[in-house]
Amino acid sequence: MTISDIAKMAGVSSAAVSRYLNGGPLSEQKRTAIREVVEKTGYHPDSAAQTLRTGRVHQVGVIAPSIGSQSVGQITAGIAGELGAQNYLLLLGNTELDPQRELGYLAAMQRNHVAGIILLGSYYSPQLALALKNCRVPVVVTGQRFPEVACVYNDDRSAARELAQRMLERGRRHIVYIGGTERDQATGVQRREGVQDALNAAGLDGDALPRICCTAFTMEEGERCMKELLACCPALDGVVCVTDTVAFGAMRALKQAGRKIVADVSLAGIGDSWAGSVTEPGLTTVQFYQKQVGEEAARMLLQMLEEKEPGGPVRQVTLGYRVVERGSI
Amino acid sequence: MTISDIAKMAGVSSAAVSRYLNGGPLSEQKRTAIREVVEKTGYHPDSAAQTLRTGRVHQVGVIAPSIGSQSVGQITAGIAGELGAQNYLLLLGNTELDPQRELGYLAAMQRNHVAGIILLGSYYSPQLALALKNCRVPVVVTGQRFPEVACVYNDDRSAARELAQRMLERGRRHIVYIGGTERDQATGVQRREGVQDALNAAGLDGDALPRICCTAFTMEEGERCMKELLACCPALDGVVCVTDTVAFGAMRALKQAGRKIVADVSLAGIGDSWAGSVTEPGLTTVQFYQKQVGEEAARMLLQMLEEKEPGGPVRQVTLGYRVVERGSI
Repeated sequence: MTISDIAKMAGVSSAAVSRYLNGGPLSEQKRTAIREVVEKTGYHPDSAAQTLRTGRVHQVGVIAPSIGSQSVGQITAGIAGELGAQNYLLLLGNTELDPQRELGYLAAMQRNHVAGIILLGSYYSPQLALALKNCRVPVVVTGQRFPEVACVYNDDRSAARELAQRMLERGRRHIVYIGGTERDQATGVQRREGVQDALNAAGLDGDALPRICCTAFTMEEGERCMKELLACCPALDGVVCVTDTVAFGAMRALKQAGRKIVADVSLAGIGDSWAGSVTEPGLTTVQFYQKQVGEEAARMLLQMLEEKEPGGPVRQVTLGYRVVERGSI
Repeated sequence: MTISDIAKMAGVSSAAVSRYLNGGPLSEQKRTAIREVVEKTGYHPDSAAQTLRTGRVHQVGVIAPSIGSQSVGQITAGIAGELGAQNYLLLLGNTELDPQRELGYLAAMQRNHVAGIILLGSYYSPQLALALKNCRVPVVVTGQRFPEVACVYNDDRSAARELAQRMLERGRRHIVYIGGTERDQATGVQRREGVQDALNAAGLDGDALPRICCTAFTMEEGERCMKELLACCPALDGVVCVTDTVAFGAMRALKQAGRKIVADVSLAGIGDSWAGSVTEPGLTTVQFYQKQVGEEAARMLLQMLEEKEPGGPVRQVTLGYRVVERGSI
């Protein structure tokens, strides 16, 4: 039921219905006709959409490393859902992982009078720490645990540990790891340390974990890294990958090398790409709740905006994960 | 090479380097030290990032139906890349396919003084046509060909036709179609008509094309629709799907029904999800250039912003496509 449906039923224009709903000038005859239809149909205008059309709308800045990626899209959708319902518009800056642009957007958004900023975190640096500290509006960081800043992040370390643990429980003893750049604490350091934690807990030497860093989270890089690990550790029987896309590349390299997944070698990714359900075998992975990360960050920011007195305790929230068992471990 | 690298080499603070680059006050000693390092290293500050930090920044509105989807992410990345380089910030509204919110964002963004608006189009309606016509700032629509509005869209019809043609060339005669809601001209009507064009051109009856609409572009819906088509058209030997995700669901249903893909039945999707390369067989599909759609729309909007006199001819641009042959036809 829309304004134009009401208009048709009342035999008036959509503009007239609009004026009726907004309390604008209208002939008594039209007013009566519209009121009757509204009462008969129980029509209730979407008040959020209504405010968007006529009310006061504020802006919140969102700074993202790569808006084209799946996880960034999901986090942004979560933020948009929560803030859109409160009639905030998102002011979006896409950094393409350029730290200078990240700092630039932080400054530009403050000059553009945003009420607050949500930063989808990537690399930490002293310059970024300083810029966040000096920010004149509330900031929430997602995906990373930065010191002394409100943030919502995933439990990357436990997730990676659990995948490696499951491989160890299946009797795997020669686990290797394909990781990402360690400039990124969450995907680079935490996930690698999680795998090492599992090895250490099983009485193996975590420090000796054979590992390689891919330069991008792509299938091509996953394939290349897997080939290198096969060359240097031919006895490997388990592979944890930093993302699902990297794992799909590793899967291809393993098949080319004649290694049977599950029978010869366990394979797992992280990130719950739905694509893992179409491969054979399916790819076991960890699902993070990215949309909820965005929602949580937005709610946290709204709460900070409501607080009269700044200076309360800094909130840092970890969201859990779920292992999606699809038969590749 | 960043400002802080320069600062370290010159033995001064980052703030001093910043002042040097922005022509601020500085002791002659520091100025000389910094100049020497800048000249020695050939350091050239990122001028876009520089303007973000200190210059004037305008806003462009982007209204999207679902920021979490892959194609929307790619289009937005294209827009952000092109506009970010010109120091525009994107003001983002996520409609979740709600026409009332779409109209609301159009109004709110104009009140928030955006320079122009890019609308990632979905459903066309008289209300939307009116709102676009009355918009006080330039508007470019992507993904749809709306009348009398500047737009950048994909050649959905030819793409679908070519997939069906390839099936016909392989000798398939009982082609069916899994489509989407016809409220969406591009994905709903144009893709369906493309398949029918191919049948008509081959002397078959396009109007009689067995078809079903899924309610969402998900694997589950693809699976459900495929089962229904198998029940009503057991002789089918070719399936064109409105998206790749829907095709993955259809693939699952075909396998469950014991139909061998390629040997018994041809299958194709549209959209070039990279996931099509990890299935067995790979999924033949059409790749659209979504990032380029965003870039083209942004360039078109920038051109409109520069035009002194409004009222020139309306530009409508179709971008081509590429069939990605992966062996499922």
